[in-house]
Amino acid sequence: MGTEFLKIKESEDALEIIQNLFDKYYTLQSEEIAVEDAYGRVLSGDVYSRMDFPPFDKALKDGFAILSQDSFGASEESPKTLEVIDFLEAGSTTDKIVEEGKCVEISTGAAMPEGADAVVMVEYCEKMDSAVNILTTVTPTQDVAKKGSDTEESKLILKKGDVLTPGKIGVLLSQGFETIEVYKKPTVGVISTGNEITLQGNELPYGKIYDVNGNMIKNDAISCGADAKFLGTVKDNYDQLKAKIQESLDDVDILIGSGGTSAGLGDVMKHVLDELGQVYIHGISVQPGKPTIVGIVDGKIVIGLPGNPVSALMIFNAFVAPPLTKLAGIDKNFEKSVVKGKLTRRIHSPVGRMQYQLVKVDGEDIQPIFKDSGAIFSLSTADGYVKVPKSVELLDEGEEVEVYLFNIN
Amino acid sequence: MGTEFLKIKESEDALEIIQNLFDKYYTLQSEEIAVEDAYGRVLSGDVYSRMDFPPFDKALKDGFAILSQDSFGASEESPKTLEVIDFLEAGSTTDKIVEEGKCVEISTGAAMPEGADAVVMVEYCEKMDSAVNILTTVTPTQDVAKKGSDTEESKLILKKGDVLTPGKIGVLLSQGFETIEVYKKPTVGVISTGNEITLQGNELPYGKIYDVNGNMIKNDAISCGADAKFLGTVKDNYDQLKAKIQESLDDVDILIGSGGTSAGLGDVMKHVLDELGQVYIHGISVQPGKPTIVGIVDGKIVIGLPGNPVSALMIFNAFVAPPLTKLAGIDKNFEKSVVKGKLTRRIHSPVGRMQYQLVKVDGEDIQPIFKDSGAIFSLSTADGYVKVPKSVELLDEGEEVEVYLFNIN
Repeated sequence: MGTEFLKIKESEDALEIIQNLFDKYYTLQSEEIAVEDAYGRVLSGDVYSRMDFPPFDKALKDGFAILSQDSFGASEESPKTLEVIDFLEAGSTTDKIVEEGKCVEISTGAAMPEGADAVVMVEYCEKMDSAVNILTTVTPTQDVAKKGSDTEESKLILKKGDVLTPGKIGVLLSQGFETIEVYKKPTVGVISTGNEITLQGNELPYGKIYDVNGNMIKNDAISCGADAKFLGTVKDNYDQLKAKIQESLDDVDILIGSGGTSAGLGDVMKHVLDELGQVYIHGISVQPGKPTIVGIVDGKIVIGLPGNPVSALMIFNAFVAPPLTKLAGIDKNFEKSVVKGKLTRRIHSPVGRMQYQLVKVDGEDIQPIFKDSGAIFSLSTADGYVKVPKSVELLDEGEEVEVYLFNIN
Repeated sequence: MGTEFLKIKESEDALEIIQNLFDKYYTLQSEEIAVEDAYGRVLSGDVYSRMDFPPFDKALKDGFAILSQDSFGASEESPKTLEVIDFLEAGSTTDKIVEEGKCVEISTGAAMPEGADAVVMVEYCEKMDSAVNILTTVTPTQDVAKKGSDTEESKLILKKGDVLTPGKIGVLLSQGFETIEVYKKPTVGVISTGNEITLQGNELPYGKIYDVNGNMIKNDAISCGADAKFLGTVKDNYDQLKAKIQESLDDVDILIGSGGTSAGLGDVMKHVLDELGQVYIHGISVQPGKPTIVGIVDGKIVIGLPGNPVSALMIFNAFVAPPLTKLAGIDKNFEKSVVKGKLTRRIHSPVGRMQYQLVKVDGEDIQPIFKDSGAIFSLSTADGYVKVPKSVELLDEGEEVEVYLFNIN
């Protein structure tokens, strides 16, 4: 198949094709992990309680566990005196039974002794050697949390898709869960292609630049809930790129490359993908980022981003982040994850292509960042981008726009 | 010093005392880490560029590098023919000099050859064997990114306090940074105290409950940017708690305990802190969470949270999260991190104490979660809490309130 058989895709079509490929070639996976390490992870199934909670009738206050009827009519003026037959700390139990005229001194959190149905707070008691004066009347179950009152066994306590906050982890811990099933993070490998790129730590010969995309896109994939790694650089060379893709696909679910040059990479990547598998997208009608390529090799998605870091970041955010985040089990509506504001300067846009304009958000002010598309330093201040539809030539100063924020979970 | 010398603190006073202790006993620390692992970390200093970027005059398009004056007057009808003396891929260099009548074929990203001052896009050229017809006029610097045009050496490129997004990591990578100075995460140890608590994985004898606070508060501290670990449980016993605190303080900056019983822990913790150091807060006038204790031991803050998990979580969020987040170098205004909405049901509150009411946020609807304070399952659905001032007895249905969201970075 040659390049000529694939027309450049409109951005909406490209989004749909990519989502469909994700849906066809991947299913959400789950894994069992320790609850204590589950912060921020997403439940892959509903969770039901294993036991009643509290697991026993529990004293809610420090005081005396009594038969409530023994307190009826008690007051400061006319206290009722009860015999204290034991003392119960939280975590302790007793064989003694509370009968009429008797009581057990009890700490908050302790299991109620048999027979007792209420706690009189210590503030309303006068303790003597082996007896206590009750100075108030209490009702049945007063200051007692009944077994199962918080939740009963086999009840739905957390839902599939819930993000595990510290509080939700607390709920799991209270039920004795040591491990929990969460969505597995999709694994993403990132390769940087280009003869001109050099890794940090090396000297920079004239004509070369340091690689940006490898570790930048890796972190972008992490922000989508993926387990991502930078797999290194490869020359802009057919055999080397082919070997690198084949070798890398064993280790990851999704492979993302980005190339040193727009035309150069697009071609090499296209030829490699044509031989190894099938190309579904070769070119998206967006500015910047036209030379984007998407294919399937061995049942796995391989994406070629533009080599220019700003373009790569925007294309990743616009076309890869939504399906990748979904595959990580994270329910995020990217179309709704926008902030609104007013443009501080007008934006000119080429007609016929969707344009992504980098912007900085400053309260209500949306400031376009005008730099040529190679200007990596625009990323020092950019918060996201505005989409200028292909039919629009100009967005005027003061116009209200929606900003797609870069995904930084 | 006995308990009687410390009056219960109003919540605003407690906040101020805790912040002052953090300010007095800690300073923000920084550490050098690998740029590739720096996603989400916070810069501890301004960052300046190490070199001009681009580091050389760079071709922005595939085409021919020429002397722009050689194209003056060129058009499709009257092309100018130039001799092609070399081919430059990105990353390559040439010794050849572009003089009048000559040019070098060039790829996007390549360093411009000496002499050339513009690129003619390949779309406006007719290539022949060793010559090319130029079909358009170009201006000096056209489709060339001049050395230093994106940033010059020694310019401020990122600021102290910046959170390292993938894009900002890209900026650092482009300048060849292998490592970067970021704020060190404060280390937090969490201890759970109580005779009634058992760790997950063990059987649960009658009268015992599984520990919640250890791993819940650990994750809460992580959400504030801390490096936190659960250090295990200890009996509600003076000698054991004292030994555990002494042993733990060697390893962490801040120690947080939480106890099995309100009175029990408060007392034991109070006595231990009195012996080992100094207690600054013993009791805060809030509901729930009154039995909170804050002291200094060996120049480190030790905090005793209520044993009840819901109380512990709220007290942590209200009193510990703000100074801890600040110590992690994260600039977050907790007073502004609120959402507004209208109460779906009225809240009754005890006069004389600030009350924290757990709520669920559902769009504009703020739903109070009414459970007794031991009800861990309220955390299945709680998004945060509403503060009811101590002078207020009732917040009515429909009243607008501010919700302090639980901190889940």
